[in-house]
Parts: sequence; structure tokens; C-alpha cells
Amino acid sequence: MKIEIVNIGNELLIGQVVNTNASWMAEQLSLAGFTVSRVSVIADGHDDILQALEEAGNRAAVVLITGGLGPTRDDITKKALCDYFDSRLVFSEESYRDIEKLFSIRKWKMTELNRQQAFIPDKCTPVPNKLGTAAGMWFEGKTSKDGIRQSADYVSMPGVPFEMKAMMTGYVIPRLKELYHPGAIVHRTVLTQGAGESFLADLLEPWETSLPESISLAYLPQPGIVRLRLTGTGASEEKINGLIDEEIKKMEGLIPDYIFGYDEETLEEIVGKLLLAKKGTLATAESCTGGYIAHLITSVPGSSGYFRGSVVAYSNELKEELLGVLPESIEQYGAVSETVVSEMAIGAQTRLNADYVIAVSGIAGPDGGTPEKPVGTTWIAIATPDQVISRHVLLGDHRGRNIRRAALEAMNLLRKSI
Amino acid sequence: MKIEIVNIGNELLIGQVVNTNASWMAEQLSLAGFTVSRVSVIADGHDDILQALEEAGNRAAVVLITGGLGPTRDDITKKALCDYFDSRLVFSEESYRDIEKLFSIRKWKMTELNRQQAFIPDKCTPVPNKLGTAAGMWFEGKTSKDGIRQSADYVSMPGVPFEMKAMMTGYVIPRLKELYHPGAIVHRTVLTQGAGESFLADLLEPWETSLPESISLAYLPQPGIVRLRLTGTGASEEKINGLIDEEIKKMEGLIPDYIFGYDEETLEEIVGKLLLAKKGTLATAESCTGGYIAHLITSVPGSSGYFRGSVVAYSNELKEELLGVLPESIEQYGAVSETVVSEMAIGAQTRLNADYVIAVSGIAGPDGGTPEKPVGTTWIAIATPDQVISRHVLLGDHRGRNIRRAALEAMNLLRKSI
Repeated sequence: MKIEIVNIGNELLIGQVVNTNASWMAEQLSLAGFTVSRVSVIADGHDDILQALEEAGNRAAVVLITGGLGPTRDDITKKALCDYFDSRLVFSEESYRDIEKLFSIRKWKMTELNRQQAFIPDKCTPVPNKLGTAAGMWFEGKTSKDGIRQSADYVSMPGVPFEMKAMMTGYVIPRLKELYHPGAIVHRTVLTQGAGESFLADLLEPWETSLPESISLAYLPQPGIVRLRLTGTGASEEKINGLIDEEIKKMEGLIPDYIFGYDEETLEEIVGKLLLAKKGTLATAESCTGGYIAHLITSVPGSSGYFRGSVVAYSNELKEELLGVLPESIEQYGAVSETVVSEMAIGAQTRLNADYVIAVSGIAGPDGGTPEKPVGTTWIAIATPDQVISRHVLLGDHRGRNIRRAALEAMNLLRKSI
Repeated sequence: MKIEIVNIGNELLIGQVVNTNASWMAEQLSLAGFTVSRVSVIADGHDDILQALEEAGNRAAVVLITGGLGPTRDDITKKALCDYFDSRLVFSEESYRDIEKLFSIRKWKMTELNRQQAFIPDKCTPVPNKLGTAAGMWFEGKTSKDGIRQSADYVSMPGVPFEMKAMMTGYVIPRLKELYHPGAIVHRTVLTQGAGESFLADLLEPWETSLPESISLAYLPQPGIVRLRLTGTGASEEKINGLIDEEIKKMEGLIPDYIFGYDEETLEEIVGKLLLAKKGTLATAESCTGGYIAHLITSVPGSSGYFRGSVVAYSNELKEELLGVLPESIEQYGAVSETVVSEMAIGAQTRLNADYVIAVSGIAGPDGGTPEKPVGTTWIAIATPDQVISRHVLLGDHRGRNIRRAALEAMNLLRKSI
């Protein structure tokens, strides 16, 4: 049973937007045990849409469509769907109520264009959209009396990523599972920080070659993190889980220092849980990371339960005034040094009244490097109730990735220290 | 004249890799005046490849293929191309010399697998690969005696992004220009903040319907921002630019309050440029945004030239101690109030010694809302050398988006105040 994805949008065909919808959908479907056999990206054009729907439906059992459902003139997917399915638009009370509700919560003013979004083709089932005004549309496939599939299921969703994602997770994937019963498949991900892909691969090689045939391993590198995903298939989920548990135990024995978590956890969530358990509070004192660590920590709901706050001291003057760094230390060792970053950590512990502090000072780039301290030079300090730990890391030459990697290094060092 | 892109690779169909090749290629082709009419992502399967080549060639004049040219077993594109074009592999001295040269520069050891990469289908022209071992392949389209195009050009390139990019820029796009003489095309984007897509569409409708036929408009919404893209085509770039300039002027008259920039600019870059021009310094005092504004500001290279730092005061205690907010104000009005956010801004101005301050206090959610102050309630204050401006906004119920939208609202308010 094959699924095809059709993404509609001129912005995708001029490269203005990267098609992250397709990769996210493919990943989620794959995790649910489905096979995506093709992704087609086409223009907001009536004939292009009709042609792509026809072709995809001839090849696949399910066609998932995104894009072109907005309220404006360039959004023509609904019209094209009506023509393809010989359907006409009817006013949907249900969709209208959903839109009204959304607008009343947000206290926005509804326009005529928004009201028109409640018109839905009569031959589809609306798929509720809790986060936006365009309902999804499910056109059910036809099956002959003797059970042979004659046409594909078509599901149309908005192109706005968070609306599409909520629809996929909350409705489309569960419904596809009911309809098509994919075989049991289990994915488990081991999260590592502090080692590159090929370094881990070397350590894991003997174990990897002896994996049972029903289990496969994929390396998923991201800046600063390598995720190791184990996928198992078989008849029963319970059995696969048992097998994967065993293999993860073996893996943990080979790379214990690099593993920080599992599956969808993030370092900021793990750190938050540890702090809540210890009833400890946290603050950050940031220079080159510029508030990014505070942002990650506070992106976790409930972080106000342990996070006190942060001082982002970009200028040396503020490092002295707000964090109590000694002017002599900056003069003698420079702002990017073990001494200064340790003083930042200790200063923040007192002044922000926190049990634990993450402090970072580095040269994120692209400018500011010297022969002794090239771009990427970074000092991290962790203050705990008992001690101050510091670490030097040399990152790369890309500002954005340096900030991200410094933040992950620092949070992982904190995690080990709690 | 249409171009289709075919990306081959299982990793793209399980969402392991985002298809940035397609967006980069589409962007470069579009900037060169070509129209990409479709992108197809297919599996590393012999029949899938043959079917996709056939379909794409029936629709388009040029088919650009990436992926599946590596030396390993799962790379089967070359074999499929041989079958499709009824071609056979012959040893190419030219490609072999390219590979040898690459290995001698990098001091790598050549293997038998690498030597085999110099075998190229006899019916194609090799496209040199200066950065890798897999040559590109150009299968020329056929034209009948009376000048009618009978089959498409097919160009196969490696999937490794930097190898493909060098090939596109150095060979494929220049050759396509020689062959097809594309017309001129101009894209310009107007960036807006503070109004939704349908609200803007209502304001712009009379103007939009009177746009000249050669110019089209697209709405590209993102959380907190709507980008309005104008695309013009014609014989001369200069003429199109003139026409688009005129239309943008009209648009600016209709939605002056919402436009903050153009094309690839970001709010943080624009704010940075304004501050540099005014020789002004900036600090942030953040509660609900948790350091995210400081992070955006410091993501801009050179921001140390105007950014002093930030106090992220998540706890009320720190609002008082580090920013000088009066305990009475918090008690009387609550931490999310005009009074407190104004005091945060003024306090930061003095204590962080900055000319301008962005202060934000709000309820990002999902918890912490009350009937009077529901989740999404946000107060923003901007302190300038002359005054303090404050604004109340009611955002939604999604923590991450609330943080993003509050940051954009606040930065745009700062931009207007500078």
C-alpha cells in the first residue's frame, strides 16, 4: 500500500520556501509503518493540480495534498478539487463554527473571505482545523462490491506547517491506521551529544553488524547532536520492543558518555525534569550564546518552576556590572577565558539567586577571531551548589551553528553536573 | 518552456533528509528566468526511475535529475539511465582523469569502485564534476528537421549538495541559457508584521485586481509575519523592475503600518542597521520571551556593535532586583501589566546603559492564564532616549508561537520608534 504526497505552491517551485512539509509528513508516515512512494511539488495552477491528482491516484492508494487552501485569490486547490471530484461547494455549519470559535478566542475580526472558507465540497468529509481557518478535506476512495480498491483516498490539508501537522497527528494518521492496518513497527531513538557521526559509527560497528535482521539502525546527525534511530518490524509490538530494549542496553555499554536521552526528549526538557526532582533553580549568564540557552530553557512549559532568569552580558562592562566579573580578569585573560566564564557563573549564582548556573563566553564569528583564539573558541562553566566546572570547546566557523552547539554542550555539561 | 526536477533517494521519502537540493535548484533556475513546473521525489528503484523519467519528459523540455550516482550498490541511477536511453557504459578517459586529479589533490587512495565511476553511458555528454567522483550526464533532446522538439534534455547530477551546486552554476545553467534564451523575470517581496493574511488581502483587494497581467502577487504567511511576493515577467529586467517599483509604491500607500522590510531582510537585521546608523545601543528586558529577542538580535553578525545585553527576569524577585521594578507595582497591577513592563524598560535603560530597550511581559502558556488575563496576554514597552511607548497584544494559546509573535511585535515596535 503506497502513499503519495502532493505539495501545491508556486513558492516551493521558485525555491522561496524549502519543502519541510514533505519531509515531516514522510517521516511521520514512515514512523507509523506506511511507505511514501513519491512526493510531487506542483504549481498553484488548475490544470497542474488536476493532472497531478490523476497521476498520483493511479499509482498510490492514498494521496495527501497540502497547500492552496488559504482565503486569497492565489489559493485555488479547493476549486480544483471540486472540478476533479465533480463536486460543488456547500456551506458547512461545522466548519463555520470552528472558524468563529478561532476568531472569538483570538479576538480577531472575521471578514467575508473567512466566511467563504466555510464552503466545503459536498463530496468530502471536512477534517477539523483547530489552528486555522481552512478545513481539511477527505475524499474517500471507492471500493467495488468484491472488495477491490477502485480509487484512492485523497486528503487535502493547508500548507501552513503547524496547521498541517496538527491535522496529520490528530486525525489523518490515526484514520489511515484504522483504514489500512500497517504492520507493527517500532522506532526508538537514542540521543547523543559530544561525538560526531563517524566517531560513533566506529565505536558501534561490531554491535551494529550483529544486529538481528528485523532491526535496523540509522544515524541522524543535526548540529551538535547525533540521533541513533533503531527501527524494528515484526508481528507483535511487544516482541519488537523487547528486542530493541536488549539492543539499546548493549549500545549504552559502548557509548555511555555520549547518551543524554531517548526519543523525542530535548536536553532542555531533561534538564528541567532533573531540576524539578532536585528542587533546584537555574540561571544562565550568557555572552556569545546571546540568550539562546535561556530561550531553550524557557521554551519548556512550566520552566518558571525552576528557571530564575538570565543575564546576557554582551559587553564587557555588563559582565562586570551585572555579574561581578573582575576588570583585571578580563584584562589579563580576555573575555573568552576560563577565569572570566567561571566568574560569570559564580556571579550569576549570587546575583540571580540560583542553585545552578550555566555560563558561556566564546567567539561565535564570523569576526572577532585571533590566532590564539580563533572563531569557535568557547568556554563553558557550570556552577553547582558544591563546585564550578569549566570546559573549553573549539567549534566551527558558522555563527548560527556555533551558538546552537555551544548551548547544547553547556546544557549537557549541566545535566551531568546535577 | 518548462523544467522539471527529479530527486532520487529513499532518504528523502522517509523524511531523513530535507530536500534542500530541490529548493536551491528551483531558486537558481527561477533567478535565471526559467520556470520549474514540478519537482518529483522518487525512490532508488529501477522502475520508479524509468517511470518518472518518462512522465517528466512528456511534460517538460528539460528534466534535471539528482541522486543515485554514488559508488555503492544502492546507487542505481546510471543503470536506469542506460536502460531508458538504450545506451551502454563506455570508459571515459576524460572522466577518469577528473577522478584521478581529485584523488591526487586530496591524497586519497583510489579503489576499483572509484575507477568504475569513469564508465559513462555512450549516448550522453559527461558534465565535469570538480568536487566529486561522479560525473554528470547530459542526454540531449531531439529536434525534428522542421525544428519541432521531439524529446526533452535530461541532465543527471549527483545528490551531494555541494557537488550538484557547482555543476549547476558552472555548467548546467549557463548551457541552458545558451539553448533556451529565457525571458526576464523579477521577484520582489514585501515583508509585513502585525496583520493576518486575510486582513491584508481585504485592504489590498482593489489594488490586486488592477495589477498588470505581467505581475502576480502571492501571500506567504509565517507565524507573526506575512510576506507579499510580486513576480513580474517580460522582455527586459529594467522594465519589469520599473513596473514593480510602481506597484510596490501603491501597495505601501494601502498598508503603510504593516510593512517593515523587503526581500530577504529580517526584523533583527533591520533594527540592527537602524541602530548602527543612529549610533544607538540596545538592551532587552524579557520575561515571557525568555531571552528569545536577545537571541534574535545576537544572531546577526556584528550585533556586538550595538547590543549591550539583556536581563531575562523570569521571577518577580529578579524583576525587582535586576531591573528595579517596584514591588508595589507588581502587587497592584501584576507582573503582566503596562506599569510593570514600562518599569522593566526604564530600569534596563539605566542598569544596562542602553539608549533603547525592548521589554516584554506576558503569559506564554499553556498554563498561567486567568479570566482577566488569559494565556496570550502580552505587554510590550519600548524605551527610547525620549519616551516610553507601551502596547498590549493578545496572542494565541501556543507557547512557542506566542514567544515568536511577541518577539516580532516588540521588534517592530522598536523599529518604528527608532
